[in-house]
Parts: sequence; C-alpha cells; structure tokens
Amino acid sequence: MSYNVGFIGYRFIAEAHANALARLPMFFPDAPPVNRHAIVGREEEALDAAADRLGFETVTTEWEDVLDAVDVLYNLTPNAVHPEPSIAALERDVPVMCEKPLAATLPEAERMAEAAERSDAAAATAFNYRFIPAIQHAKGLIEEGHLGEIRQVRGRYYQDWLVDPEAPWSWRNSEEMAGSGALGDLGSHTVDLLRYLVGDVVGEFDRVGGRLTTFVDERPVPGESGTRPVTVDDAYTAHVEFESGAVGTLEASRCADGHKNDHLIAVYGSEGAIRFSLDRLNELEVKTDGDRGFESVLVTEPEDPYYDHWWPPGHVIGWEHAFVHENYEFLTALDGDVEYHPNFQDGLAVQRVLDAIERSDRDETWVDV
Amino acid sequence: MSYNVGFIGYRFIAEAHANALARLPMFFPDAPPVNRHAIVGREEEALDAAADRLGFETVTTEWEDVLDAVDVLYNLTPNAVHPEPSIAALERDVPVMCEKPLAATLPEAERMAEAAERSDAAAATAFNYRFIPAIQHAKGLIEEGHLGEIRQVRGRYYQDWLVDPEAPWSWRNSEEMAGSGALGDLGSHTVDLLRYLVGDVVGEFDRVGGRLTTFVDERPVPGESGTRPVTVDDAYTAHVEFESGAVGTLEASRCADGHKNDHLIAVYGSEGAIRFSLDRLNELEVKTDGDRGFESVLVTEPEDPYYDHWWPPGHVIGWEHAFVHENYEFLTALDGDVEYHPNFQDGLAVQRVLDAIERSDRDETWVDV
Amino acid sequence: MSYNVGFIGYRFIAEAHANALARLPMFFPDAPPVNRHAIVGREEEALDAAADRLGFETVTTEWEDVLDAVDVLYNLTPNAVHPEPSIAALERDVPVMCEKPLAATLPEAERMAEAAERSDAAAATAFNYRFIPAIQHAKGLIEEGHLGEIRQVRGRYYQDWLVDPEAPWSWRNSEEMAGSGALGDLGSHTVDLLRYLVGDVVGEFDRVGGRLTTFVDERPVPGESGTRPVTVDDAYTAHVEFESGAVGTLEASRCADGHKNDHLIAVYGSEGAIRFSLDRLNELEVKTDGDRGFESVLVTEPEDPYYDHWWPPGHVIGWEHAFVHENYEFLTALDGDVEYHPNFQDGLAVQRVLDAIERSDRDETWVDV
Amino acid sequence: MSYNVGFIGYRFIAEAHANALARLPMFFPDAPPVNRHAIVGREEEALDAAADRLGFETVTTEWEDVLDAVDVLYNLTPNAVHPEPSIAALERDVPVMCEKPLAATLPEAERMAEAAERSDAAAATAFNYRFIPAIQHAKGLIEEGHLGEIRQVRGRYYQDWLVDPEAPWSWRNSEEMAGSGALGDLGSHTVDLLRYLVGDVVGEFDRVGGRLTTFVDERPVPGESGTRPVTVDDAYTAHVEFESGAVGTLEASRCADGHKNDHLIAVYGSEGAIRFSLDRLNELEVKTDGDRGFESVLVTEPEDPYYDHWWPPGHVIGWEHAFVHENYEFLTALDGDVEYHPNFQDGLAVQRVLDAIERSDRDETWVDV
Repeated sequence: MSYNVGFIGYRFIAEAHANALARLPMFFPDAPPVNRHAIVGREEEALDAAADRLGFETVTTEWEDVLDAVDVLYNLTPNAVHPEPSIAALERDVPVMCEKPLAATLPEAERMAEAAERSDAAAATAFNYRFIPAIQHAKGLIEEGHLGEIRQVRGRYYQDWLVDPEAPWSWRNSEEMAGSGALGDLGSHTVDLLRYLVGDVVGEFDRVGGRLTTFVDERPVPGESGTRPVTVDDAYTAHVEFESGAVGTLEASRCADGHKNDHLIAVYGSEGAIRFSLDRLNELEVKTDGDRGFESVLVTEPEDPYYDHWWPPGHVIGWEHAFVHENYEFLTALDGDVEYHPNFQDGLAVQRVLDAIERSDRDETWVDV
Repeated sequence: MSYNVGFIGYRFIAEAHANALARLPMFFPDAPPVNRHAIVGREEEALDAAADRLGFETVTTEWEDVLDAVDVLYNLTPNAVHPEPSIAALERDVPVMCEKPLAATLPEAERMAEAAERSDAAAATAFNYRFIPAIQHAKGLIEEGHLGEIRQVRGRYYQDWLVDPEAPWSWRNSEEMAGSGALGDLGSHTVDLLRYLVGDVVGEFDRVGGRLTTFVDERPVPGESGTRPVTVDDAYTAHVEFESGAVGTLEASRCADGHKNDHLIAVYGSEGAIRFSLDRLNELEVKTDGDRGFESVLVTEPEDPYYDHWWPPGHVIGWEHAFVHENYEFLTALDGDVEYHPNFQDGLAVQRVLDAIERSDRDETWVDV
Repeated sequence: MSYNVGFIGYRFIAEAHANALARLPMFFPDAPPVNRHAIVGREEEALDAAADRLGFETVTTEWEDVLDAVDVLYNLTPNAVHPEPSIAALERDVPVMCEKPLAATLPEAERMAEAAERSDAAAATAFNYRFIPAIQHAKGLIEEGHLGEIRQVRGRYYQDWLVDPEAPWSWRNSEEMAGSGALGDLGSHTVDLLRYLVGDVVGEFDRVGGRLTTFVDERPVPGESGTRPVTVDDAYTAHVEFESGAVGTLEASRCADGHKNDHLIAVYGSEGAIRFSLDRLNELEVKTDGDRGFESVLVTEPEDPYYDHWWPPGHVIGWEHAFVHENYEFLTALDGDVEYHPNFQDGLAVQRVLDAIERSDRDETWVDV
Repeated sequence: MSYNVGFIGYRFIAEAHANALARLPMFFPDAPPVNRHAIVGREEEALDAAADRLGFETVTTEWEDVLDAVDVLYNLTPNAVHPEPSIAALERDVPVMCEKPLAATLPEAERMAEAAERSDAAAATAFNYRFIPAIQHAKGLIEEGHLGEIRQVRGRYYQDWLVDPEAPWSWRNSEEMAGSGALGDLGSHTVDLLRYLVGDVVGEFDRVGGRLTTFVDERPVPGESGTRPVTVDDAYTAHVEFESGAVGTLEASRCADGHKNDHLIAVYGSEGAIRFSLDRLNELEVKTDGDRGFESVLVTEPEDPYYDHWWPPGHVIGWEHAFVHENYEFLTALDGDVEYHPNFQDGLAVQRVLDAIERSDRDETWVDV
C-alpha cells in the first residue's frame, strides 16, 4: 500500500518533512511507499509554487478538504492551529504527525491527547531530535548503564535570531499563536530529549522552578508601519527534579548572541557522562568508566543508528537527516501497526512540564508537574 | 616598610598564597616587601614542615598569639573558623585577607562585615578568580559597552572529586564546618565573578530560585571505620534576576564526572557575548559587533592585564598566577591606603545570594536577596 | 530540455551523485531537469537493485551501450577506468562528469585532457569539496584580500580505515587500478582545494618535494584465502612552492588513527588566516585584521553560498550537500553553455602535482611540477 | 652542598630559569639548594636591575670572570655565543645548562659536544618542553605500547610575532647570531620533542627533505633609521624518515597569523595516537585501543608527572612550570652524579637534523642526517 499524505503548512518545516519523504525510497527502501498528495495553505500563489517544488499533487486552502483524501495528515502549522485539524483527523482514524510543541496550551494538548486515546490511528509529535544518531547512541550508553545512576542533566538551547530589537515580529512572538516563546519553541525539544534519554531511568519530570523573560517588548512587522507587542518569552530558565530525585537545569534563549542553533544536552551519572551539541550533531562527547576525560566520538560508523543507510564513516550528515529517520520510523510503525514514539502522550507530557514552568514563573514558587 | 604576614592555615590554599607572596619581588618589584613571619596550625609536626617549606619564620598553634606580631593576617581556615580570628584582627586594626566564602552562614558574614566597617584596617575576601587576565579583559569589554545591554548570564562550576561514593569525607562535607557544599565552595566564586563582571551595569542579585541536592549521604573517613554523614549539598542549581531585570542561571557540582575544575562564565548582551572556562584560563571567547561567531582570544599580550609582568604572548600562565595578582593588588592597596575589592562587603553580598538560594531551596519558592 | 544521464558505477560515489540529482528539483528548482536514464556495472544482480533504488530506468553491463542514449555521462569508476569511457563520450560530444583523481597516471590524464580540448562537450572533474559553503566563503575572503598576501598553506587529509593490518584489500590498494593510494585518493582533493582557494593569487604549484610510505604491505581479500600485495602508498607527505613563492605542506594518510574523514585546509597570509576541517564542514575559522584570534564562523546564513536554498541558520548541512551544489553548477553550466570548473584541465593540473610528488619520492629530490 | 649558579644573560629566558630556581625550595624541597650567585651581561644598568630583581648577588660584564666562582653555568645567550663560555666551563669541569638550539651551526655544536665528552661535568641542553607533564604522560603511553608500532609523527610550531613586516629586527633575524630562524628557534624544540617521545622506538632521524622560506627580507631596527636584512628563515617545512621507517612532517613559522606559541605534536601508531598543543599544555588528546575517538585528558592528577608537587586536579599550571621541572631534574642529577638528558649529545643530534634540513634546502634534494 502506498500512503497518501497531506500537509497543512508549506514553509520551512513542511520542506523538511517533504524532503524526508522524498529521500526515503533511495536510502530507506524498506519504508512503505508514500504519495505526496495534498498540501494546504492560505496564500494560493505561494502554495502552488510550494506544491510544485515539494512534489505534491494538489493544493487547497481548507484543511477539511483533505481529510478524506489522505492516509496520513501532517499538521505543520503554528502551535495554536495544532488542535482542530489533528483532532478532526484522529476522529476519522487518520494518523497524524503534528509539529512540536503539541499545542499552545496545556488544555489544548490534553484535548489532543484525549482524541488520540480515542482514535485507532497513530498520533505522532514531531520531536525530530530523537532521531539523530548521536542522540540514540547516547541513549544506548545510558540504558546499558555506562553512566551509572543518573544524577544531573542539563539542557540549554541557544539561538540568536531575536538578539536584534529590529528583528521582525512573527507568529512566534505571539502568545495567542504560539503559547509561549523560547520555552515552547526550544524548551519543548529539550524536555522531550531529556525524557527520551533518561526518562526510563529517572522517571518523569516531577517538580520545577522556572522563569520566563522578555528582553524586547515590541517588534516591527514586515510590510506594516509601527510595531506589534511581543507577548511571549525571549528566554526561559528552570531547574527541575525528576521522580528518582535526579536534578537538572533547563534554559533557552532566542537572544543568545553568537549561537545559531546550539542545543546542548548533558547527562551526568555516578560513573560517567555524555555531552551533545546540535551545532556538531555528528559528534558525542563520552566519559565512561576507564576514561580520564571526555572522548570525542564521531557517530558515523556502520554500526551506529541509521548510519549504514548513509555514507562511509566521517562523511557527516546534517540537521535534515533526523527528519528522514523520523519519517522512516513513523511510516514503518504505521505500516506495521506498531506503537510509535514520541506520540501525543509524549507531547502532552512535555506540555505539562512547559505549563509547570509557566505556572512557576507566574506564582514565583516551585511547582509540581 | 616591610609587612609581617601571618597565616592561619598551612595546607593547599595557604601554599597558594605563600607562593604568591614569594613570587612578588621577581615579577612585581613595585609591590611592598613582605616578611612571611608566622604560621598557625594545629598539627605541630606538619606545621613545622610547612613553615620550613613555605618560608615562614615561626609557628604557633594559637592564632591569638600572632595578632600582635603581624601587619597582615591571612585567614585560610575552614569556613566556620573565618569569623573569630578575622574579627579579632580587625578590632586591632590588623588588615585581613580571608578565604572565601566569607563565612559559613549569613549571620556570621554580617558580623564580619560589621567588624570590617568598624575597623580602620582593610578586610579582603579572597576571590582569586577576579585576578585572571582573561576575566579582567572580559570586564573591560563589558564596561566599554562592547556587549550592549547585559541580558543573560550563566555560571557553571563543575568538579568531579566527589563523584565516587567512596571519596573520603572531609570538613567540606560538613554543614557545621563549611556552611554549605558546592554552593559555598564553588557557587561563591560564581556569584562573585558575576558581581565583578556585570554588577556595575546590572546591579545586585535581586531575586533567586534555588535548589540544593546531595547525591551521596555518607562518606568514609580516612583512618576511621564507618562513615560520617554528608550534611551539605553535592550540587546546587539556581536561576536569578538582577536589579536591572537581567537574568541568569547558576549551577555547581562536585560530582560532574569528567570535569576537574571547570568554571564556566558566560555573559550575553544585546550586542555581544563572552565565554570563559577556567580549564583554559588564558583564553576568552568573544563575540562582539561585527564578528559572525565567537573569537578565541589568548589573553597573553603585553597590553593585557598583568601580562607585561610575565612572559611573551602565548607563553601561558596557570591557576596560581591569579593569587600573585590578588596579593599584589591587596598589598599595594594596603601600602597606598586605597580601597581594595573584593572586601568583606563584597563577601557579604555574595553570602546574601548563597543564603537566598538556601532559603529558596528550603521554602521551595523564589526569594528576594 | 531534460538531460538523460548515464552513470558508470553504482556504489558509494554513484549513490552520492544520484542523491544529488534527485534533490535538485526541490532545492534548486532552476536547475535543468534530469532524467536518471541508464546505469552501467558488472554485477547484474547488484546493478538491478542499485538502479531500482537510485531511480534509474535501465541497466547495462557495457558502457559503450549507453553513449548514444545519454546527454551526460558520469564516470564513477576506479581510477584506471576513467580514460576510455570518458574519451569515448567526449569524442561524441557527450559531456562527462568524471570522478577524481582524473586518472591513475599522468599520461592518461593528459590523454583525457586532450580529448576534452578537442571536444565541444564539457568535461568536469568531480572535486566535490569546492562546493562546500565554508570553502567558498574562504575563497571569497582570500580573493577580497582579507588575508593579505598569501604566504603559507597547509593541507592534511587523515582517515583511519586502513590503520588495521587486517582491513581488507580493495582496488584502492592496487597501483594498477588506482595509480596511487592516499596521494591520489585524498591528496588530489587537497591539491584541488588549494588550487581553488589560492591559485588565483599564488599561481600554480611550481616545485615539490614528496614522500610516499606504505605501512602495511599486504592485506587479506574478502572471500579469498591469502592476501594481496598493497602496491600503493598508505600515506604521503610533501612540501611545495607556488609560482608566487608561497610555500606549503601537504599530507594524507589512510592510517591516521582517530580521524575518520578529517580534511584540514589552512591558509596564512600577511594579514590574516583561515582554517577548515571537513569533520565540521559548516564551520570556518577566520582570523582577519582586527581580530585577536580565530573566529569560529558557522557558514549557514542566507547570504552564504547556497545556504538560501537550504535551512535557517545553524540548521547544518552534511557531506552530501556538496554533491548537490556540484551537480547544480555543472548542469546549470551545461544548460547555459558556460564554462565549468573544475574541468579536465583542472584535473590534469592536479595530476601533474601528484605525479611530481611521485617523481620526487622516486628520485629523492625536489622536482618541478 | 649549595650550588653557586652563574647566568650569562639576563632577559626573558634568564628570567624563566631564575624563577625556576627560586621556586624549587617551596615545591621541590628535595632539590639541592641553589645560590643565585652571579649574572653576566653587557648593559650595566639593566644588568644591575635584573640581578636585583632576579635575586643574584653579583654582576659582571665578562663571563670569564664567573667561571671560578660558580658551580654551575647557565648559558642563556644568543645561539652564536653558546660555544665559547660553555666550552670554557666544561674544560674546568663546571657543569653547563645551555639554551637551545645547542649552537648556531653544526660544527660549533660538534665542538661543544666534544668538550662535553672530554669533561667530567654535566652539559645540559635546555629543551624545556620535555618537562611538561602532558608530554611525559604521552611518552609513557608510547613506551608502554599503547599506540602500537609508531608510523607517523607531526610537529608544527606556529608563532605570529613576525607576521607584520614592521615587526622589529632582532638577533633572531640574523644568521650570524642565530644560525637559522624558525628552524633553529622553533624547529629545534620540535626535533627534540620527537626524539624524546619516539626516539627509543623509531631510532634517530635518518633522512630529511626540507625547505626554508623568508617572507620579509628586511626589518626596521628600534632606535635606528633604515632597516637591516633578515638573513634567516621565517618558516621551514620538512618531511622526515626515521631509522625504523616511520615518517613525519615538520613545520614552523614565525608568521602564522593567529598563533601565539602553538607547538603541536602528534604521533600516530598502528593502535593509537596522541596529540598535544602547547597553547593548552595541561591537556593531552589520547586515542588508544578501545576508544572510538580522541579522549581529552587533563594531565593534572596527583599520579601524573610532577603534579603531586603542585595543585589539586584541574588547577592548571603554565608554561614556566616546565622550567621548574627541568631545573629540578638537572640539579638533582648533578647532585646525585647521575646522567642527565637532554645533554649536549642530544643537542648535537638535534643540530644534525637542523643542518640536514638546511642542506636539503640548499641542494634541493633529500639528504641523510
């Protein structure tokens, strides 16, 4: 069976998924065949051009139109638009791949997770960084006990595209559209990665203390005179405790000058440690028993996750490859009718942490997740 | 005039100060002359050996004995022993250089600061890292506005000497003797450095949320059977807000596997950023306007702070050199009767932040400093 | 017009080119359309599978069969097989993209370059690393004079896949098939990149002193008992002088333990320097006037070469993307009938340097290129 | 017995040795006592100031005057002045510590080595980098076989103080005074370090091909109008072969923009590799069997060479500490009447390599050492 796929959204992140689907036959020939069927968007001219370039057969401006025609729905919209199409699809048992964070608010995420529970269809949250080989290698080391008991984690995600007060306003600066700023956009990745890496051994995030900050209160709007208010955070910080008692610090900023897309994850245990930086995503720093210092491992060997599908050792892959792996796993799970993660429950678990950080910021106290 | 100096304490940190004093004549010939007069300690045999090796004239086991004989007192004892000798010296107008943190508790630090206020003698807190050339270069960049408005800071101090549960108990694991663990020992350095670097532009630490954690509850005691309880934190995390509204994260651990003495300081502004790591203390990472990324600067040029006293560019200095600079500045200030920083007021300001982090941990809420 | 493309070769490097062609429509929609028509190889079963996976319409075991059917021939064979099909194609005015090094020997490279001269068709040598954004950014800096007068260069290419004496024999260990070892395989990349980066300002390689070494004399053959002799170098070293008097060192090894695909290029001038490492191909280290040290630049901005076709800043690309750019430039040049570089003359210029290094090794003297 | 020490020379390198001697009692109390007796120099005023600052008892402008009064002579003069005082001292059986390279020319080095052979006194060449803990740790790994059979080495020493054509002329730019430029000044360190690290397993340097280059032909003289000619190399490159057949590349420049004192040493074997950079002299990159990549080792543990004399782990040392270790070893060997290395024979062995590189450059051929 070939899967008819529909996308809602046709810009950056849609391109990443379209590219992933297009590359599967050559590099993951055992993936189920996919037909890029329909793409949904609001600006018709741009939409036509995108469909043409991304290889879709048809376009529409109404997402309701595609639900009957597709076998899988990709919801690649701003956060506030995640619930309705996703829930509608799931109610028809159409599987959904929804971009992260799952929703703009916790109640909406709960509605979505409930819809997923009720549906027979799979519901994926698109936390793509789980599918980086170095991250999966790290997870393997942790699960095999090479780090001993996990004690401390750190997650820091720095970008700098808002450091300039003249950087333009977009939906990502609107609470209504995005829910939160650096917290939801970047922090959701951090929370998911930590859940993925250490959740099996330290349990869920249990309690958090957090803080949101906005450095620039209003920004110019392209094509408009005047500015619009920034109603989300430019940066957040948090410290957290897991069910096991392990602790950690979280942080993200979209104003961290000099950092383009620098997602740093570190995990410290009683017998070892790992460090990862998205800027150098083929590498993992590993300190395990017997080592005197961190070993710089290029995770590009045939025995590393997914790497036998790609190139010889040291012929490095890029950011987009995580999307290929993610779509491969999702479609393969669909086809085999096996459970896929991260699903909407994972997305909801992340949202609970984001929400707790926001509550902690508002109430100026440590809160339970 | 030659200064008769007395030390209380004769181990690690006393060695660092004795070495600093011994090196001044060759490298800072304009420093006032110093006579290493008396050294105070409890174990007589070890004390004699230390005095001999460190170049002191006399020894005693009672610190009260030296107050009349010295022009400057170095209090290099465990934290709980900081107040009495320091206050006694100041009451006699004997200048004091006291190790950090200023005290084990806030009330004791307040007592010490009050004694300093009442005294005509200088009272220094030994925050040595202020005197690293790269740190002073960073301060210069910040004060000259190269980073724009300061928005975010980060301070992370990682060591690993307690990662092993069998690592021996020492006074540093005792609340009674140390006050706190990683917080006071390492965090005090972080707080002081941030006050030094950005305090003039962001004001004092205003509010904090913090968390202390102990990973190993008891440790063996060398030469004893059985263990003693660890009554301090192995790690702390905090997020902070300054008077200006700038925010930050702080963190330290003595269980961070793979890190020996890794004190990372980062400052982000609206137009630039700097990063520093104590492991590579001759280097400063600088991103200022016009740079596309961080520039790796070796702070070893003749025009860099203190470097004309040392070696040609690239002939790097070590950890101990900060002590030489610190003692040079302290003695020169004494001799010229000018104000010296960091003094006991600075030490107290740091202690207020440490105390606030402990209160926040206890009350599970964000607290005012 | 759509270009019918034929490949000779269907393994690793063919996959890299097939992938590049497949990705053009989505990311470089202005590239001329390409039809992956025929693929040539010897093992029929593997060939069929490859054609299927790489998206080719037909297969054949005889390269002569495809010359009439294709508009462009990709010669992706072992070095010794480069001349005949390439020359045959050019004689029919079929454009050729030939893998590097141009040939196994200088006389064969000369024959190929002469055929290219006589032909109306373009003849490209596949030096893919020219098309990495960071390399092109470096070239821009050099050409704009940011480094001043170029004085010294360095090129070092380290891999480790032959460090183990039990690593299997392949055609890359055979002088007959490959011409040389690390020299031709890796050194050809280095020589081409240096010609590309600084050739316009320092002229051609003028004189060289070189040395070839074989560490492991024989290697096991998969599926055979016994071993075959290694008749090429495992490593080479050279020092070189350019027409301008600028100097340099070259080096490569396939036995450099711990390095997977580490091609380091450095250029030093009277006013600045750049450094590049293939392991971190999105980065360029830049020291230009005014900088105190090397600046670490992530070459992923929209204004960087090709990057507006890909992802937002910091969303890094991989090794394979250079092939996309290379094929884009080649096909666009074909379509516009404009000159393309690196062509067979460039390939020949590289081969002259390789040959000079071999002569220098044989004669134990410095030789003119 | 206390050793009366005489220095010829009172600037940079004399300061490094004087500092080393002054620090021995505190950190290496088992070193024999030393009396900084006499210091020899030409400019009386500066000499007096230096003696005062460096702690010497007397000064003289004639080196012959001190030979009878000292137990050890430190020859810290420009290269051309190495032979006469060193030979005169050895003829009186006064031990000598002579700066590197041993001499300006091979014949002079031979004369010195012969004098050392005839003398009962020790004759040391001051290759200080042998005494860096990370270097000695590397030597230990190599000797214990952790790298397997040594195959390739690399030594690259980059400084940038002559990158500017207006940088002033000094004796280091004069063939008469210095013998050679980057070759003798920097290359001698590289050759010595490689002999030290791998000489026991690969034998002596056997054959070399080399090249010397001068980028700036004349330089201004401070306090004079006009310029003086530069009669030495600004940079050299070489490739070498050892007796065992192992190969290597050597390189140094005093015009490598952005590098202050960057001496990189790398050794590759059949089972592992090490890398060292003087800029970060507390660190060693180690790849040994079982590691996937290079491990970054901070060589500051109590069990590391010399480190139990200094500070806790991670409290890093600087460039000058190698001089302390060097003088400790030298004086201890003197006192115990045991053989010391590097001696004049080692200095001569290095000089043979330097001379061979110069001959190779002159004759444009590969030459035997």
